[in-house]
Amino acid sequence: MVKISNFCIFRKHSTIEEFSGQTFDIQTKILPGVTHWQSPNYFAYYPSNSSIAGFLGEMLSAGLNIVGFSWITSPAATELEIVVLDWLAKILNLPNEFLSAGQGGGVIQGTASEAVLVVLLAARDKVLIKVGKNALEKLVVYASDQTHSALQKACQIGGIHPENCRLLSTDASADYALSPAVLGEAISNDVANDLIPFMLCATVGTTSSTAVDPLPALGKIAKSHGMWFHIDAAYAGSACICPEYRHYINGVEEADSFNMNAHKWLLTNFDCSALWIKDRSALIQSLSTNPEFLKNKKLPLMLQASQANLVVDFKDWQIPLGRRFRSLKLWMVLRLYGLENLQGYIRNHIKLAKHFEELVSQDPRFEVVTPRKFSLVCFRLLPHNDEACASKLNHDLLDIVNSTGKVYISHTVLSGKYVLRFAVGAPLTEERHVNAAWDVLQEKASTLLGSM
Amino acid sequence: MVKISNFCIFRKHSTIEEFSGQTFDIQTKILPGVTHWQSPNYFAYYPSNSSIAGFLGEMLSAGLNIVGFSWITSPAATELEIVVLDWLAKILNLPNEFLSAGQGGGVIQGTASEAVLVVLLAARDKVLIKVGKNALEKLVVYASDQTHSALQKACQIGGIHPENCRLLSTDASADYALSPAVLGEAISNDVANDLIPFMLCATVGTTSSTAVDPLPALGKIAKSHGMWFHIDAAYAGSACICPEYRHYINGVEEADSFNMNAHKWLLTNFDCSALWIKDRSALIQSLSTNPEFLKNKKLPLMLQASQANLVVDFKDWQIPLGRRFRSLKLWMVLRLYGLENLQGYIRNHIKLAKHFEELVSQDPRFEVVTPRKFSLVCFRLLPHNDEACASKLNHDLLDIVNSTGKVYISHTVLSGKYVLRFAVGAPLTEERHVNAAWDVLQEKASTLLGSM
Repeated sequence: MVKISNFCIFRKHSTIEEFSGQTFDIQTKILPGVTHWQSPNYFAYYPSNSSIAGFLGEMLSAGLNIVGFSWITSPAATELEIVVLDWLAKILNLPNEFLSAGQGGGVIQGTASEAVLVVLLAARDKVLIKVGKNALEKLVVYASDQTHSALQKACQIGGIHPENCRLLSTDASADYALSPAVLGEAISNDVANDLIPFMLCATVGTTSSTAVDPLPALGKIAKSHGMWFHIDAAYAGSACICPEYRHYINGVEEADSFNMNAHKWLLTNFDCSALWIKDRSALIQSLSTNPEFLKNKKLPLMLQASQANLVVDFKDWQIPLGRRFRSLKLWMVLRLYGLENLQGYIRNHIKLAKHFEELVSQDPRFEVVTPRKFSLVCFRLLPHNDEACASKLNHDLLDIVNSTGKVYISHTVLSGKYVLRFAVGAPLTEERHVNAAWDVLQEKASTLLGSM
Repeated sequence: MVKISNFCIFRKHSTIEEFSGQTFDIQTKILPGVTHWQSPNYFAYYPSNSSIAGFLGEMLSAGLNIVGFSWITSPAATELEIVVLDWLAKILNLPNEFLSAGQGGGVIQGTASEAVLVVLLAARDKVLIKVGKNALEKLVVYASDQTHSALQKACQIGGIHPENCRLLSTDASADYALSPAVLGEAISNDVANDLIPFMLCATVGTTSSTAVDPLPALGKIAKSHGMWFHIDAAYAGSACICPEYRHYINGVEEADSFNMNAHKWLLTNFDCSALWIKDRSALIQSLSTNPEFLKNKKLPLMLQASQANLVVDFKDWQIPLGRRFRSLKLWMVLRLYGLENLQGYIRNHIKLAKHFEELVSQDPRFEVVTPRKFSLVCFRLLPHNDEACASKLNHDLLDIVNSTGKVYISHTVLSGKYVLRFAVGAPLTEERHVNAAWDVLQEKASTLLGSM
């Protein structure tokens, strides 16, 4: 961790002359200001996994430094991405409609934010083609109030009116999952008010507490209203490579699109967000432009390949034009580690989280706030069930614990309660690191309570 | 170059079992399908520079693998980006309003497409706040018909009606630059029709022919109508680090935002697109969301730093939430090479392009189509000024030349003419490579003409 004052060194020395020097200041200026996401003592937010295989993939990608916006600008980049995302789809046991053989397919986005944005645009334009583009202000998107802020941002970007972004309330009774009844009622009200429901975004493993929305029931409602059904499994999707956790995405058969971040918890360096879609033409419809200088007319043997739809141009599946050779690192991870090792990796983290959950349960001053599903434990300090000062107390505990520099955790707010998040997922984390973190938490809790 | 058939090897072998193997197939499966952007014989599109310094930066970034969405998630990533973009702004002699000290600042986007999108969103929302969000369908954006397709894509994404994206026609008489008179007339017509001009996108170094729009005159028109003035110097911006080419961005003082791609022609690995803006609050207004789980409450010494605007959260300056530590590679490039070497690097490429232009001029069968400004030469085969078959002839020449695998060039269409593009800019390109490419072009031209 670092103080803001550390950075005066940057601001002070940032003169035009400085960069003509030849010495690097990684040790003295950069590392002191880095939040160490790869540290085994990092338990904040969600993980951002680096690995030997992922690093090798990044090196190859940086060395080749191609820009794979269309097939011809590096056929291997497009083809490998198609192959590797088919592999991952099969590992996750996704429906065949998400495979490249049919009308669908997978594509690597930078982040889950871009994934939800491009599907929102596809869903938006699909309905606007039917009802006319001036109906934009009538379009309504649905999700739970636990949904990642990326959906709200996507609405802002795509021109969906903020008041038409329904973040339906959830509560502890359903572990913060979206209620089909609540959704159905909201849709009925909107339809009665001449609004147009066009998209439902469900989450498997919310950012706050790993809530899992009931996909089968939600999917049926979405289909019955002709809405686009998107599933955001950015974090928890990785766990679904294990048969015993796969059931969390049951209902994905109903989905139009599914997203998970291999860069979070699957040892693939950031960024690598895997998005699958059943109807790729909907994406292409929204995102393609075809200027002369990019047309595929370079090879006699595949003359105008793109125009003839013989090949895939991923530029039309994403926001930017240019794109890195990101499939290399995912390929490396799958080839070097293999499915069994990756499953073992996930299971170990979940085992460690379960261990932490037990430690918390054994200390009467603490409570586990929501049942742990994956590798995140939501907990808080609650001495004598004293709600009055609980939020401030946990807020202070977070600050004191993180200030030690020995461990880094984050927080959220659930039903108005300030809650601490302990997310296991760094590649180097072992039981001893979890125990050490718990020791710090207990010690600082005692200090705090003693000073009250 | 590669045949599409090469890729059956992927499609055939892409079985679930395959990835459990331990051997990599880089040599046999990947490299044959790579379009070698780093080859000294690569003259297509625009360059995508890799370098030792850029590669080192990518390695460091991949090793740390942080996700710098907000200041606290790695202060060094945000602070270094601020510093390095201030440096680059000073190198380019950009107005002080673009520096971080005031209300503006620089940010690294993935691509110029994302840069023009985020400024279009900022411009859109700035005017909609005034006139009401239901006026979206009345907003008009202006640019020349030479403008990169990224603008059209940004309009599609941001909900600007396609028919309100004015791509004003240009011609050879002004070297395909946007005419202030034509712009003024278009604006007057739209205002008369109760439409709302809200953004002008000018280009310095268009993708087709490096046309340079007259910034000072265009800027005045944009200001007089209260429009957002964006300058896209994605490719040519790098040349402006040399005093003798800086005049091409004279008029940038009038701009609200300026963009150049360090990843094209400035030895910084892809992706690193530098965007500067005078009023960062306009970007943040459009792109920020502030969920509880991302709030900056981790450090006692800078409690709620983000909310108090003590620090910058770049997540609110871009489309995605997550972001890589991209400033490292630009920092490496500036520190390791220094300004003089970078200027020499640019000057050498321009010298080589000038040499190629002379070679073309000396062969009566060819013509240089537009005057060369930077390192791109637009030319074509035109024996006996025979326009009738010229386009097919050059189309065939491109295919035959690229099929040799000895050189890779691309094409565009100017005033209906099929034109060949020869863009010098690969780090390893020397005069001998330019001469060799010209030999192939002459030889294949003779073959083509002989067979007519």
